[in-house]
Amino acid sequence: MSSGVESFRQLSPSEFFYRNREIAGFSNPARAVYQTVREFIENSLDATEVHGILPVITLRISREDPSNPDHITIQVEDNGIGVPPQFIPDAFGRVLYSSKYKFRQTRGMYGLGAKMAILYAQLTTGKPFEIYSSTRKTRYIYYYKLMIDVKKNQPQILELASWEKRSKWHGTIVKLTIEGEWSRRVRDYVAVYIKRTAIITPYADITAILPSVEKEDEYEVLRFPRVTSMLPRPPKEAKPHPLGIDLEMLKMMINETGAKTVLSFLTSEFQRIGEVTATRILKNAGIDPDKPPRTLDDDELQRLYKAMREEKYWAPTDEPLSPIGEELIRIGLKEILRPEFIATASRKPSSYSGHPFIVEGGIAYGGELASRLDEIAQDSVKGETGPYIVLLRYANKIPLLYDEKTDVMWSIVDPSKFPWRSVYKLEPTDTVAVLIHICSTKVPYKGVGKESVANVEEVESEVRLLAQELARKLREYIQRKKRVQEARQKLSLFLRYIPEVAASLAAIAGNGRGTPDPSIQKELTEKMREIALAKIKLSEYEASA
Amino acid sequence: MSSGVESFRQLSPSEFFYRNREIAGFSNPARAVYQTVREFIENSLDATEVHGILPVITLRISREDPSNPDHITIQVEDNGIGVPPQFIPDAFGRVLYSSKYKFRQTRGMYGLGAKMAILYAQLTTGKPFEIYSSTRKTRYIYYYKLMIDVKKNQPQILELASWEKRSKWHGTIVKLTIEGEWSRRVRDYVAVYIKRTAIITPYADITAILPSVEKEDEYEVLRFPRVTSMLPRPPKEAKPHPLGIDLEMLKMMINETGAKTVLSFLTSEFQRIGEVTATRILKNAGIDPDKPPRTLDDDELQRLYKAMREEKYWAPTDEPLSPIGEELIRIGLKEILRPEFIATASRKPSSYSGHPFIVEGGIAYGGELASRLDEIAQDSVKGETGPYIVLLRYANKIPLLYDEKTDVMWSIVDPSKFPWRSVYKLEPTDTVAVLIHICSTKVPYKGVGKESVANVEEVESEVRLLAQELARKLREYIQRKKRVQEARQKLSLFLRYIPEVAASLAAIAGNGRGTPDPSIQKELTEKMREIALAKIKLSEYEASA
Repeated sequence: MSSGVESFRQLSPSEFFYRNREIAGFSNPARAVYQTVREFIENSLDATEVHGILPVITLRISREDPSNPDHITIQVEDNGIGVPPQFIPDAFGRVLYSSKYKFRQTRGMYGLGAKMAILYAQLTTGKPFEIYSSTRKTRYIYYYKLMIDVKKNQPQILELASWEKRSKWHGTIVKLTIEGEWSRRVRDYVAVYIKRTAIITPYADITAILPSVEKEDEYEVLRFPRVTSMLPRPPKEAKPHPLGIDLEMLKMMINETGAKTVLSFLTSEFQRIGEVTATRILKNAGIDPDKPPRTLDDDELQRLYKAMREEKYWAPTDEPLSPIGEELIRIGLKEILRPEFIATASRKPSSYSGHPFIVEGGIAYGGELASRLDEIAQDSVKGETGPYIVLLRYANKIPLLYDEKTDVMWSIVDPSKFPWRSVYKLEPTDTVAVLIHICSTKVPYKGVGKESVANVEEVESEVRLLAQELARKLREYIQRKKRVQEARQKLSLFLRYIPEVAASLAAIAGNGRGTPDPSIQKELTEKMREIALAKIKLSEYEASA
Repeated sequence: MSSGVESFRQLSPSEFFYRNREIAGFSNPARAVYQTVREFIENSLDATEVHGILPVITLRISREDPSNPDHITIQVEDNGIGVPPQFIPDAFGRVLYSSKYKFRQTRGMYGLGAKMAILYAQLTTGKPFEIYSSTRKTRYIYYYKLMIDVKKNQPQILELASWEKRSKWHGTIVKLTIEGEWSRRVRDYVAVYIKRTAIITPYADITAILPSVEKEDEYEVLRFPRVTSMLPRPPKEAKPHPLGIDLEMLKMMINETGAKTVLSFLTSEFQRIGEVTATRILKNAGIDPDKPPRTLDDDELQRLYKAMREEKYWAPTDEPLSPIGEELIRIGLKEILRPEFIATASRKPSSYSGHPFIVEGGIAYGGELASRLDEIAQDSVKGETGPYIVLLRYANKIPLLYDEKTDVMWSIVDPSKFPWRSVYKLEPTDTVAVLIHICSTKVPYKGVGKESVANVEEVESEVRLLAQELARKLREYIQRKKRVQEARQKLSLFLRYIPEVAASLAAIAGNGRGTPDPSIQKELTEKMREIALAKIKLSEYEASA
């Protein structure tokens, strides 16, 4: 060891990630099952809704080899746009090769997920990855069986086939077998993940077929049929905002631009920079606007970068974002939680460090909520000082299940900090579900696990305003409900006497023989009822609801 | 967006890590300063002590550009083995190229750290990385100024020079400038990191020159001179243990082996497999021992892997490990904390899943401890139910500063769980420092941050045994000290009367004239003192201590 010279060697990206698989969540057999399911389902959602297709997704988990009960086979089928056959080997068999490196909101982690699942299958069971896929335009279905050559970071095709389509089917079926754990705990994590996904994708048809934890050869089916055919607006690619880039990115953009002058580089490659702004930036940087961008030296580049940072701009456009929308949030909460009351809210687009984001959400209360939440509140712990707040966190439409307590969303709705009782008048025994969705071209995750969102000031402030708006709406409902109940009690008291009084009055005003005139009696009853309702400020609808 | 076909592209590894720099701890300007310091110092330690050189390391942090006060320049100089000039560009300018991919204990994270610092400098200040280096054998010092071509994952050499050496100097000087934060908090993190490093490297000479947080152009110097020239034993490379590999690794080994038969493959490429064991494994797998390894088909490979996992072996050798050793732990704790009492302990090598590990540590109490701990207990929080336990965590000689509460080491010494008071008789007001070092060829880190060690059963058990041994030694000391104090009080009572009694007796036994015989008096005094000491079980040494 003290020979004095070290030897060096190059790792392929596959080898690196294979050695450091915990980066993508593949840290143990239990987590690996959850992570594989998640990656495949998110790929399926990205292959459907983003392209205007109403998703139909089927997950099948099975134990196919009785001699290896810890070999878990995971298969996901979707009706997405499919992967063109020429891209399949690289898209699944080459690490750091992806369609996801674009300036718009996507699910998924670095486009690494599926490949990590394939590597994990390979290193635990040694079984290859299988895929069937067909795009909308082709007449064929293609089948690949492949592994990743870890040393070369290259796909290794073991089998390849194709068939002519008999139907118009398009989509993708992926399948692999990992060494995993299928316990009550893992089953619950998978089930909670699917349910929370179903809440924010009411436009998707999701079926999950899961093996029974107790009994061999038995399965349970979780069905979430589509309840609306409304899709969220798709994200659009956009040019970067001048505050959203760093110096290295600026250099890369200059190397790739077709612009002939720095001035046109600025106006054509960025959003929110017009001629006036560009001219001012270049003046502040002391750079000739007509200079070809690639002739800038290091010093000029730094001056340009500095001048760009010091300029004021319009906030970034929210076009690359794809929020769920209040309507879909309402539908999803209603379908899965069946509460008595739902309110939704959506904040205006905002931004931090040049990255646009939107915070939106909903609040649910009463009805079947409490019993239905039990199955979905996997990681929530009842606080000591109620009310019981169950937080459903989402970032770019992905449910976040781990590390709740370190998330900015929890830091806001935490019952020990948020005035649920003092300001929003909840009772300690109340149970409330709060759904919060943060979408951004760059979600400010805390650490690499991508399970918890950091306390960025701008985001925190929007989350707080959202929570306040939701809580206010809930308070209004609860107070109104209380008022209605009190009023109804008063009303029923009045109503008990109205017929009698009406009858007496009708008799007096009647034909003199002491018998009440029915038409007068009816009119009087209605009049008195109207007066009573007006007196206690209750609408006819509310009174009878 | 609904065009229906996605376009794909390949990322270079540099581009990937540049985009996901939080993987290596470069998540914000504050953390980036700490992380850069850490990476460079750890590289310097790996370039010295592992090769039998007593480390001399100087860290200099400065703000060199008054117009950019957030540009922080970080320079580290060491007297290590140096980097041969032909390797310098790739070793610092190409991601995933490293000397650290070996089967032995090293510091550092994936060999990625320095490159991430260089990328971070590039993308925040645009300034290149500079290095001076000379190996022991060469007559020259080489200088490179370089950047990383992110798109190509290639070094880009901006300047290159060399000089003939006038002295025998060897070592490396690295320097870069990042956009960073230099606040009280960041300064404290850096200082705590250096002090905790100094504790377990008493054989190193470490100087840190840090800018004042308050005053421009002022510096503070932290000096940790070498206090011993004893080095920990260096790690030796070893063959992998059969339980420490996975199926994918087995395949890679088979592809690279020079062995002609499966039998000789097993005996030559693994530790703890002799002919008998190899023969039994192959019999259980149903494989002909004479088969050339590369002719095994997938099914045979899986059978081989399964048979290997089901076999019993000797535990893995601890040769690839480099524990600090009790002596050095004692010296380090004494030098930095100046306590009244230190005890150390070291557990025998153990293993989990085929990976060897050693747990060792020390405990310190009294003296100047409490006042000196204040500066070093950055992240420790005083519990409500004392004693106050400050945990100094180390993994492969790296101090761990973040995420203490989720670490297996904390889970053991946590005063709310460990019986510091009931069993080990500490007072609620006591302050104790506990140092624990886990070294392994694969430290079971929790997540990717590599700041906290997971609760692996075998590791947890060894940490618990270590903590118990340390606590027992401390209890013995404290109880003995108490006993000595009580005995001394008794003794002083006896001693007050001994001269008088001795004088009277000497007079009686003396020359009859009533005056004591001095020699008899002296003898009697000593005898009585001996009897008194024996009676109260105190050694002459303890009585006078």
